[in-house]
Amino acid sequence: MSKRDVYEQLMKHQRELAVLQSCSAVLGWDQQTYMPRAGAGYRGEQLALLAKLSHEQATASLVDECLNQLDDTAFPADSEESANIRDVRRSFTRQSKLSSRYVEELATVTTLAQEAWVEARTKNDYKLFEPHLSAVLKLKREEAETVGVPSGGHLYDALLDEYEPGATTAEIKQLFADLRKELVPLIHAATPADTTVLHRSFPVERQRYFAEGVAAAMGFDFQAGRLDTTAHPFCSAFGPGDCRITTRFNPQHFNEAFFGVLHEAGHGMYEQGLRTDAFGTACGTFASLGIHESQSRFWENQVGRSWPFWQGCLPRLKQAFPGVVDDVSIATIYKAVNSVQPSLIRVEADQLTYNLHIGIRVELELALLTGDLAVIDLPGAWNEAYTKQLGVTPTTDTEGCLQDIHWSFGGFGYFATYTLGNLFASQLLAAVRREFPSWTDDIKNFEFSGTLNWLRKNIHQLGRRLTSQELCTQATGTPLSADFWLTEIREKVKHFRDVF
Amino acid sequence: MSKRDVYEQLMKHQRELAVLQSCSAVLGWDQQTYMPRAGAGYRGEQLALLAKLSHEQATASLVDECLNQLDDTAFPADSEESANIRDVRRSFTRQSKLSSRYVEELATVTTLAQEAWVEARTKNDYKLFEPHLSAVLKLKREEAETVGVPSGGHLYDALLDEYEPGATTAEIKQLFADLRKELVPLIHAATPADTTVLHRSFPVERQRYFAEGVAAAMGFDFQAGRLDTTAHPFCSAFGPGDCRITTRFNPQHFNEAFFGVLHEAGHGMYEQGLRTDAFGTACGTFASLGIHESQSRFWENQVGRSWPFWQGCLPRLKQAFPGVVDDVSIATIYKAVNSVQPSLIRVEADQLTYNLHIGIRVELELALLTGDLAVIDLPGAWNEAYTKQLGVTPTTDTEGCLQDIHWSFGGFGYFATYTLGNLFASQLLAAVRREFPSWTDDIKNFEFSGTLNWLRKNIHQLGRRLTSQELCTQATGTPLSADFWLTEIREKVKHFRDVF
Repeated sequence: MSKRDVYEQLMKHQRELAVLQSCSAVLGWDQQTYMPRAGAGYRGEQLALLAKLSHEQATASLVDECLNQLDDTAFPADSEESANIRDVRRSFTRQSKLSSRYVEELATVTTLAQEAWVEARTKNDYKLFEPHLSAVLKLKREEAETVGVPSGGHLYDALLDEYEPGATTAEIKQLFADLRKELVPLIHAATPADTTVLHRSFPVERQRYFAEGVAAAMGFDFQAGRLDTTAHPFCSAFGPGDCRITTRFNPQHFNEAFFGVLHEAGHGMYEQGLRTDAFGTACGTFASLGIHESQSRFWENQVGRSWPFWQGCLPRLKQAFPGVVDDVSIATIYKAVNSVQPSLIRVEADQLTYNLHIGIRVELELALLTGDLAVIDLPGAWNEAYTKQLGVTPTTDTEGCLQDIHWSFGGFGYFATYTLGNLFASQLLAAVRREFPSWTDDIKNFEFSGTLNWLRKNIHQLGRRLTSQELCTQATGTPLSADFWLTEIREKVKHFRDVF
Repeated sequence: MSKRDVYEQLMKHQRELAVLQSCSAVLGWDQQTYMPRAGAGYRGEQLALLAKLSHEQATASLVDECLNQLDDTAFPADSEESANIRDVRRSFTRQSKLSSRYVEELATVTTLAQEAWVEARTKNDYKLFEPHLSAVLKLKREEAETVGVPSGGHLYDALLDEYEPGATTAEIKQLFADLRKELVPLIHAATPADTTVLHRSFPVERQRYFAEGVAAAMGFDFQAGRLDTTAHPFCSAFGPGDCRITTRFNPQHFNEAFFGVLHEAGHGMYEQGLRTDAFGTACGTFASLGIHESQSRFWENQVGRSWPFWQGCLPRLKQAFPGVVDDVSIATIYKAVNSVQPSLIRVEADQLTYNLHIGIRVELELALLTGDLAVIDLPGAWNEAYTKQLGVTPTTDTEGCLQDIHWSFGGFGYFATYTLGNLFASQLLAAVRREFPSWTDDIKNFEFSGTLNWLRKNIHQLGRRLTSQELCTQATGTPLSADFWLTEIREKVKHFRDVF
């Protein structure tokens, strides 16, 4: 067989793997949206079987044979083919170290842990979740040890690598230290704005209609996607033409659903912008979770919390909710959606404090992984960190260490990508504004297509062809740095003062 | 390995097969309920892959090896083990004759055909569906020829056998001939009742609430199931604790959703009554599609269209729809829901004419399969049969040969089981009434648990341990016969006359 034939055979195999994995995604989506309660146990069995079959497919001897025939000289180093082969090799190397037993056990344990987490959170009873968290942590530690890290690396690197290929614990630690130093005085100096306007009565069905309208205007294609309601908002892309986003509605708080929808629609537009002809290969896949998060944060914050956006959005809001916000000025709503106030719940946090929430989680999961923190001591350590860093103390574990789903599904190493996404989104904003001098006018006029097309061309259509670091440099002209984000925040703080 | 070990290994394999097949069921349900339009093509790819994997699992050499070691003497002939082995052997024999290529092609072709059917039906354009129907028919003919039939059998037997193991074309033809002879004069003698009460304004959300309440009272467990809205109502059971039913709502016609829900809930209660400990084996599976349909028709017709049911239901209906049916008497509504009137749409047909609708479909699909009828001539043949047998002529193909989804998914041989189900449901009613002398009072009091428990014990918990014929005889004391149904219908016609 020619190198080309071997390559095509490998890609066909990988596409089939992607199709199989996407079946799990459908079942996972259904689990969060519509599955009746009594179906949970059996759903775990279905997901465990699909995980096992996916793992078998990912580690099939065919993959090994193809990879052996496709060395670095098979295709030009900067070709699409080489990028796709590199990614299969990276994934195969990782996956083939993990046994079928491990993969199936992880699927079963995390399905049960997710159920236990829901119950523990509802009943505010950490004890119900604790044994499950221990079981998940034990498996993830086993995974990190099995996958291994280069000499001098940190055990945590092996987990980071799954979500953000190439990221290291040392860099991440430094990043959060730098951010914390700059953020703490900024947060202390901020005065919370009057947010009562966001707590007026917003009927749920109108909220849905309005949020869908704005997401559609931004470019989320509802012919190829849909919005549902879940306890924990997420985006799940099944494959070409099918991407689901979810949110939750609070009739007394406008922010929850609205910014949630912009956020998830940002994820969704990234998925909808991937190359369908390359589906199942690296070039048709998102670059990393950090890049993914940059797309959601960009539409949520860089666009959705900007002054020009509210110049365009407020008249529409008044039309959609007659009698509810008639008296509201742009300054009032802009101030409200950007209010800085240390709080307990990450997903409702403002742009400034958000990264501190993430920093706490990264610290704690590092300590859990190394064993410096015992699972039973998590609630205490959590509350202590919040008190010290954010000046607020949870009174229940539900608003403390039980608030996030991530650890229950084994997402250790996941949180850091949220902050990487925040930073990258700022850097993208700077690049987009350089590209479009009329950017603020466009946004004010609800004209988003220039921005989306730029993201399509410079991010989405490239898939995973470059590493996230390379992608950042190519798209924005400079390597990823916290400077853009800090500059944006400082300017926003200043603008905030000027406006009022 | 001992026979026991071989048996356990085979059952474990079969359970895994059932789990895999149930993943397809989740994707199929989603396709009908929530999938965005643009996801259709990719969904076909997912379903084709799962069909291929299921077929590989069903025909794995392990199954053959186990079956070879488990001859008729391995376990007592009337044991659970023997029943499970027999069913695996039957299924393996059939499946192993079909190639992977065939199975994958059928999945792809029928997914596309279903999409084309939806479009053709919406646009009332048979030409859009015709090439797809030809492709499906060609594959099903290939399947029948590949599976084969015993000498003297009919090609159609091979397709019937998938849905109703053991049924033959000769019996089915005779059955419909007998029914037709008796039914035609009965239908001619019937005067349609005044059904205007059913066409008052019934708000959709109240219809949903009311139908769910009645289904729950009958015994459908909404903790382990749910009701959604689809163009074509169905029931899909994924596995223990998860059974989905669907319906469609018409604010100007009470019957569509209400009797649809009772029907699908009947299917659902059967699935919810199967032995979860035997899931994946014959003893934990429905006996046949005819038996399945008997459960849905029993709750829809034998219960839901009975006089005592409406004695109990009408006061509840008045409470649920204040101001809508205040003036209605039991006689009026009983008469309306039992009105006999030849019509065009099967799913809305009354109890008397329903089996004629089925007979027409069976005749036509037989003719299509043998080639006596060309696919292009189907609309003409359909309209001719309706004119001749029911005295009504479709003016569009949407209300003619495009009304049913079945042929688009390859369900040739499926329709006959609807009539078998109708007959069996009558026979069950006779048995239940013998068992519970207070039956009419129970139903009047909305006390359904005695009836459901009897069905659980005599039908549901037996799964596929017996053939449908054996099951019928054991549960009701006599082999399946049209006499019970005809007697019930005659009595109903008489009661009808007495009531008014």
